[in-house]
Amino acid sequence: MTVDSLDSSGRIDSDDLSIAYIGGGSRQWAPALIRDLALADISGDVRLYDVNVESAERNARFGNWVQRQEEAVAEWHYEATDAIDEALDGADVVILSTQFDPAETFVHDLDIPKEYGIYGAVAATIGPGGIFRAMRTIPLYREFAAAVREHCPDAWVFNYTNPVTFVTRALYDEYPGINALGLCHEVLGTRDRLARYAREELGMDASREDVSVNVKGINHFTWVDEVQCDGVDLWPLLADLADREEARRTFTAEDLDGESVFTDNWQVTWELYRTFGILPAAGDRHLVEYATSFLRGGKETLNRWGVKRTGSDYRAKHWTPAESEQTTDVEAWMNGEREFTLESSNETFMDILAALTGDGPFVTNVNLPNEGQVDDLQRDAVVETNAVVREDDVQPVAAGGFPRPVRSMIRGHIDTQETVIEASRTGDLDHAFRGFRIDQQVRTLPPEASRELFAELVLAEEQYLDGWNLDESRILRESEAYPTE
Amino acid sequence: MTVDSLDSSGRIDSDDLSIAYIGGGSRQWAPALIRDLALADISGDVRLYDVNVESAERNARFGNWVQRQEEAVAEWHYEATDAIDEALDGADVVILSTQFDPAETFVHDLDIPKEYGIYGAVAATIGPGGIFRAMRTIPLYREFAAAVREHCPDAWVFNYTNPVTFVTRALYDEYPGINALGLCHEVLGTRDRLARYAREELGMDASREDVSVNVKGINHFTWVDEVQCDGVDLWPLLADLADREEARRTFTAEDLDGESVFTDNWQVTWELYRTFGILPAAGDRHLVEYATSFLRGGKETLNRWGVKRTGSDYRAKHWTPAESEQTTDVEAWMNGEREFTLESSNETFMDILAALTGDGPFVTNVNLPNEGQVDDLQRDAVVETNAVVREDDVQPVAAGGFPRPVRSMIRGHIDTQETVIEASRTGDLDHAFRGFRIDQQVRTLPPEASRELFAELVLAEEQYLDGWNLDESRILRESEAYPTE
Amino acid sequence: MTVDSLDSSGRIDSDDLSIAYIGGGSRQWAPALIRDLALADISGDVRLYDVNVESAERNARFGNWVQRQEEAVAEWHYEATDAIDEALDGADVVILSTQFDPAETFVHDLDIPKEYGIYGAVAATIGPGGIFRAMRTIPLYREFAAAVREHCPDAWVFNYTNPVTFVTRALYDEYPGINALGLCHEVLGTRDRLARYAREELGMDASREDVSVNVKGINHFTWVDEVQCDGVDLWPLLADLADREEARRTFTAEDLDGESVFTDNWQVTWELYRTFGILPAAGDRHLVEYATSFLRGGKETLNRWGVKRTGSDYRAKHWTPAESEQTTDVEAWMNGEREFTLESSNETFMDILAALTGDGPFVTNVNLPNEGQVDDLQRDAVVETNAVVREDDVQPVAAGGFPRPVRSMIRGHIDTQETVIEASRTGDLDHAFRGFRIDQQVRTLPPEASRELFAELVLAEEQYLDGWNLDESRILRESEAYPTE
Amino acid sequence: MTVDSLDSSGRIDSDDLSIAYIGGGSRQWAPALIRDLALADISGDVRLYDVNVESAERNARFGNWVQRQEEAVAEWHYEATDAIDEALDGADVVILSTQFDPAETFVHDLDIPKEYGIYGAVAATIGPGGIFRAMRTIPLYREFAAAVREHCPDAWVFNYTNPVTFVTRALYDEYPGINALGLCHEVLGTRDRLARYAREELGMDASREDVSVNVKGINHFTWVDEVQCDGVDLWPLLADLADREEARRTFTAEDLDGESVFTDNWQVTWELYRTFGILPAAGDRHLVEYATSFLRGGKETLNRWGVKRTGSDYRAKHWTPAESEQTTDVEAWMNGEREFTLESSNETFMDILAALTGDGPFVTNVNLPNEGQVDDLQRDAVVETNAVVREDDVQPVAAGGFPRPVRSMIRGHIDTQETVIEASRTGDLDHAFRGFRIDQQVRTLPPEASRELFAELVLAEEQYLDGWNLDESRILRESEAYPTE
Repeated sequence: MTVDSLDSSGRIDSDDLSIAYIGGGSRQWAPALIRDLALADISGDVRLYDVNVESAERNARFGNWVQRQEEAVAEWHYEATDAIDEALDGADVVILSTQFDPAETFVHDLDIPKEYGIYGAVAATIGPGGIFRAMRTIPLYREFAAAVREHCPDAWVFNYTNPVTFVTRALYDEYPGINALGLCHEVLGTRDRLARYAREELGMDASREDVSVNVKGINHFTWVDEVQCDGVDLWPLLADLADREEARRTFTAEDLDGESVFTDNWQVTWELYRTFGILPAAGDRHLVEYATSFLRGGKETLNRWGVKRTGSDYRAKHWTPAESEQTTDVEAWMNGEREFTLESSNETFMDILAALTGDGPFVTNVNLPNEGQVDDLQRDAVVETNAVVREDDVQPVAAGGFPRPVRSMIRGHIDTQETVIEASRTGDLDHAFRGFRIDQQVRTLPPEASRELFAELVLAEEQYLDGWNLDESRILRESEAYPTE
Repeated sequence: MTVDSLDSSGRIDSDDLSIAYIGGGSRQWAPALIRDLALADISGDVRLYDVNVESAERNARFGNWVQRQEEAVAEWHYEATDAIDEALDGADVVILSTQFDPAETFVHDLDIPKEYGIYGAVAATIGPGGIFRAMRTIPLYREFAAAVREHCPDAWVFNYTNPVTFVTRALYDEYPGINALGLCHEVLGTRDRLARYAREELGMDASREDVSVNVKGINHFTWVDEVQCDGVDLWPLLADLADREEARRTFTAEDLDGESVFTDNWQVTWELYRTFGILPAAGDRHLVEYATSFLRGGKETLNRWGVKRTGSDYRAKHWTPAESEQTTDVEAWMNGEREFTLESSNETFMDILAALTGDGPFVTNVNLPNEGQVDDLQRDAVVETNAVVREDDVQPVAAGGFPRPVRSMIRGHIDTQETVIEASRTGDLDHAFRGFRIDQQVRTLPPEASRELFAELVLAEEQYLDGWNLDESRILRESEAYPTE
Repeated sequence: MTVDSLDSSGRIDSDDLSIAYIGGGSRQWAPALIRDLALADISGDVRLYDVNVESAERNARFGNWVQRQEEAVAEWHYEATDAIDEALDGADVVILSTQFDPAETFVHDLDIPKEYGIYGAVAATIGPGGIFRAMRTIPLYREFAAAVREHCPDAWVFNYTNPVTFVTRALYDEYPGINALGLCHEVLGTRDRLARYAREELGMDASREDVSVNVKGINHFTWVDEVQCDGVDLWPLLADLADREEARRTFTAEDLDGESVFTDNWQVTWELYRTFGILPAAGDRHLVEYATSFLRGGKETLNRWGVKRTGSDYRAKHWTPAESEQTTDVEAWMNGEREFTLESSNETFMDILAALTGDGPFVTNVNLPNEGQVDDLQRDAVVETNAVVREDDVQPVAAGGFPRPVRSMIRGHIDTQETVIEASRTGDLDHAFRGFRIDQQVRTLPPEASRELFAELVLAEEQYLDGWNLDESRILRESEAYPTE
Repeated sequence: MTVDSLDSSGRIDSDDLSIAYIGGGSRQWAPALIRDLALADISGDVRLYDVNVESAERNARFGNWVQRQEEAVAEWHYEATDAIDEALDGADVVILSTQFDPAETFVHDLDIPKEYGIYGAVAATIGPGGIFRAMRTIPLYREFAAAVREHCPDAWVFNYTNPVTFVTRALYDEYPGINALGLCHEVLGTRDRLARYAREELGMDASREDVSVNVKGINHFTWVDEVQCDGVDLWPLLADLADREEARRTFTAEDLDGESVFTDNWQVTWELYRTFGILPAAGDRHLVEYATSFLRGGKETLNRWGVKRTGSDYRAKHWTPAESEQTTDVEAWMNGEREFTLESSNETFMDILAALTGDGPFVTNVNLPNEGQVDDLQRDAVVETNAVVREDDVQPVAAGGFPRPVRSMIRGHIDTQETVIEASRTGDLDHAFRGFRIDQQVRTLPPEASRELFAELVLAEEQYLDGWNLDESRILRESEAYPTE
């Protein structure tokens, strides 16, 4: 390489940024992003790819429509493509956000384990349902990682697809040089809540941005051991709050009637804080999937702690592209049925993007392979901590370690995750079963039941398990649930 | 130190060995030891101490009586003492084997968790019962360790008291320079079984002594990944055996009717071997307490895998000193009611003792703090591997590590053990609860139930929990089961 | 703690900041700081303590004089004190910058080893001189740490005193909860240099602030493996530069005649880069003390690589308070002999201070105990990496590890540092000698010479080695250099 | 695998053992082995392979001749072969003991560094000479390892070839499943010496077999921290001995005149013991190559510590096959010129062999990849500790760790060794140079001199460096010593 070939303009040009958007066709998030981009200090082009071509096209149409609104300050051009390679080619930024048809997948993740007495609250990221979601998704994301290596090896890849830990881990396992970040909103919600306490208890004029935390763990099972709001140490406040009646409420099914499944009553959070002396930093509905004793006793226990199960019917309903509200919105906006205002959505994604293009530093939580940021968890496992985002650069912050009992729970989940990742390298189903077998939710089943549950899930989702070698599986062969000749 | 003060006769003199025997008054083991010593190539004196003075005295009487039998080749003098310091003073060897009155302790360990649905098979070394047994025993053994440091700092301390891991760990935690070995028969049983296979399947003339294994793990949850019998690699044989009908039996309660609880059907062993590809090396009744899915489904599951629960009535009955068979034997022998023959019992203890006094090297499994012998388990935790015993010297053998899923299970138990040990340093009951709370058996309970179970056990065994600070416990204060004003 | 007692105004108040300035009486840095503070967006009081009371008083006088200048925007009050406790009491920020009389210490650090053939370039932070500087300084800084714990336990402590690694380590070893940062300019100089390359080679309009590096190592032996300037990856440029004539210059003593010892010719930097493929990030004169082959061959080798030794005469001359230029300046300014202009000095200290009081985040290199930020160096050793400074919060950034050969050199120095720190806990001189003996510079001596050198240094600096137990040292007793009766 | 295919006779049959002897043609050791085998309780065949076919044939002839002597109790058949594959095919035991012509290799290892002021005492296992010996040998031993994998994958491979650490490491690096042991006599010599002290100081009737040590480190830089003789702790004796005049002798060149280079005066040993509190366990002439300050000051220093350099002339002379004494002996015995008596040589090899065939356990020091036996040295590096040898099984004993200063020295050497091994995977000469450059002997040279020395050695031994990529080496290209066009 000679100096002459060095480009002095930087790799990322905020006037000509190229974004590849993979999936996300029907999600609320695409329209929000499109509006955010229109208001940003960055311009460029967005190429949208989705297996559902129609929704990629609708989003492209919407994107270009938004650009024509007079409040749009940035210049973006949107284009849909039916070839993922075309979308990725030369991209600076890749957004990954896909999902299989829930009616054929997620519904089983929730319903089949329930028959075995595993009453998962969300079943999206760990437990039998979460593991099968991972098993379906990992092979596809290995392909994505390989395509990134080929078409845009230096791109910043934002993964929003669940289970975030498994999926981000698979991206790095396939292409270790990838610049991928696993992103999730849960910690932001915790900072929102802590800002509320600063307002209510200390009379501070505080919002999420004022609250900084030292966060660490794995996605959906993150913990916080330092909290500051505008220089005020909020940690001592927690002990006081945890002892109040508000932190010791007992809920019944009736209490939760009519409540959204997304309402977070923080009772699980407070109980874990009281027991272990460190504060969880994800919604209660996610925490219970990792701190599994809250799932024991089924609906009653879950409700008693203020958590409402996300039923499989909800999932199925809220996905179908044709009916989803946001789709309707987009069409309504474009055809004038509904008034459109161009407002920013306050998404962290835009802050990260701004920092990556030079407007940093910006500190936020991300999921990355562990290279020391969580000292007492395994290297290379994907962990969640704060990171500093600077121009074309993201580096995790050294967040320290854990008290032993909490570390023990986290390591157990990492062992499941890593075992499934190991198994996915060759599609060894029986090795994946080992990860399944030691999962904290599955462990509550007798040995044979865990095998039958596994086999039933394989049977129900077989068409989505392409990357796995079903034929040579001893587990399937010995099961009653799975028909073999 | 000058050369003149150096004694050229060695620290341990096999003609004048001094043994302190702490506890063990009513156990079968003392009379066996006495007979073994009489036949050994070692002589000396034995000082017996037991809280039950009477049984120490009876054993001393029996010891001296055996010495007068004409077949006795060694010269031993037995003496009972009611002062532990006297027993320990200047001892070369200390044997620890004590137990609290099961009717007031062990019975609760078994019965109270059962009410919560935890159907422990033995409840002696892990799970809620095992943890409480540890909590009762650790403070006493800290005192023993301190007494050893004062009265016989270089003595070889043989710990037979359960839970062996917790107790041996406590000895080292209190006096890091102690020469303590945790001993257990389970791995010997596995070697016996493997010798049987060598005989039956390969027509070899094999016994336990011919079988060598690479063993590693924690007591009662040890694993073997190499097996040789007289130079023949038995490992390939296991895959064949594991696939046979004999290794796939299903038991009912009726099948086990009349069976001893000690009968080992190896169905748990085979299932774990098939699942994880490595062979467990402890009796099935112990394994299920660590591989806890075998406890899920209660009696039915346990029986289905050929394991019979050791009921609390059994424990209570088989302990009461006055009625125990072995006591009767001793008296009967001495008063001539029963014919006495002086035979050796084939105990490993005698082999270790012989090797320590110069007749080595001898290789056998022992429990010791980890200093690298199991590479992927925590340092200082007490682990079980082979060790080489030589004159006044015991060194563990480097046994390597584990496949991840098995390691994950073991680490989880170590985390419970270490948390309880940490808590025992100050008697912090709420910290001990953290270890209890993450125990694999306890985790199957909803959060509140785990607290109530803990409180109930504290209440039932309160008089044996001297070393613990009950007054400042938040857990007790918040519980319903434990009365606080 | 109740909510009522929580102060909603934050621990650090930028309108009422309390700074304790320990030492630094005669240094150039105090007057610069005083001017920076006057221009800052922060106000408060500064208490100055120095063993040389006079210079603390002069600085206080100067500080208050500057405040009276009309360009001063902040409000600061300066006060000298002769009691360190008074200076520290309730401080938010503590600045440590002390030095013993070089004529009685540093001169020996340089001259005595030279007699043994160790031609240290600076002798300030490692090698026999650096180690003795550490041995003199550590006991005093243990006292400082204890005083901070007592008088201002949460204060942010900025340590500028060399050897930065040893001294910062001692602060944490004495008071593990201290918020101390070890600070040094060397990495900033490297970023300046890299900015120059960006300007000269790529025509960029770049300054130090535009250059971000991934820096890691120990102070004065830091390394960089990523370099970006305004989003442009400068790494490929290095290979090109390293091959040019400019990076392969050979210097003679004459070439360096008249040059300042601080001139950095980067020939050592380039040679290490070419050999190991990673870029050192400290001045060449410091690097050679750690990459010790550059010291072999004495003056000639050193000069050949463009490094000029800092002679002991220079040190002695440039310290004496009465004559130093900066003192003269201060007096001249105050009495009007010289024109005074209030300008900021562009010190990183002010950026850190601003970020700590809420104007962050700010990323810069600091020395902190390793908690994972350098994955393959020992935990707790003091390492240098980037850190993110936010309101009342500093967290190091996970910087990864090293190629083996470089790691090997760094670990060797850490072993010396940690051995000396261990020794300093009890003042065990012979254990300190072990650290001295394995030092890379000392290792080039025959065994006896290393002992004699050690003894000579002890003898020469005896009055400054209060914290060390000289009487019981076998090394001194066996030496010829040190007189014992 | 079915049971039927399992052989109940064991893999190693002591009545039909197959030994492959690679190299060793002219060495003293082969005739000794032949006599030992004749007296052993094992029979079988030995296939000899040497590049020098003649000497393999002579040894075979001698072997068969010995078998015909009437004192021979075992039955062995000897055969020479000129195809290594034939020698290895189906072997149970492989002995590796080769050497290149010293006149063309070893002579340079000693003489060229000496010109640069590196006065290596032996230059056989570390330092510039040792590293070049490693670089010559590693590629060949990679071939041997590959041949073992193909022709006798389960064979026990005894490596006697120096540098033992590098070579054993290369065997495992090439074929991780190999059963290779690196063997060396040095620790045995230390045990002999300690037995002498037991005799002389304590009046014990002791020999090497009575002395047990806890040994650990890397070959030729091993250390002992526990010593027992027949149950007597000898450790306290060392402090007394180290303080005596005998342990504080100063030698001159004259004192050593006429002495063998193999005479071990233990002055280096005592000095290291006094400094670091732990006892080295290799001959002084080897220790000085690792504790390199003893080499500083050249001949004078070396002699002062009682060590005599092994000159290159000695090496060259003592190797030439035709003239060597042992060859003469063999011929003289066979043709009756000299009386032959069949005596055993007391070689450890025979004890290991006996234990491997079932006559164990036997404990002795061996070199093996670290799997935890030395807890604070890197995994996979080849370390030396005790191991237990049992039938078809060798397991290292967990030996613990090191005091920091000693560990630091050892780790430095391991870093050189591992860097050269890494480099040897692709033949990357410049990466090998990095290992050379950080070697403790080489570090005493200025940077350019280390490069020139490396280049000179490459030039002198070029014909033996087949496995290395000389053409692409930057180091050679930049050197003056190595001619490039």
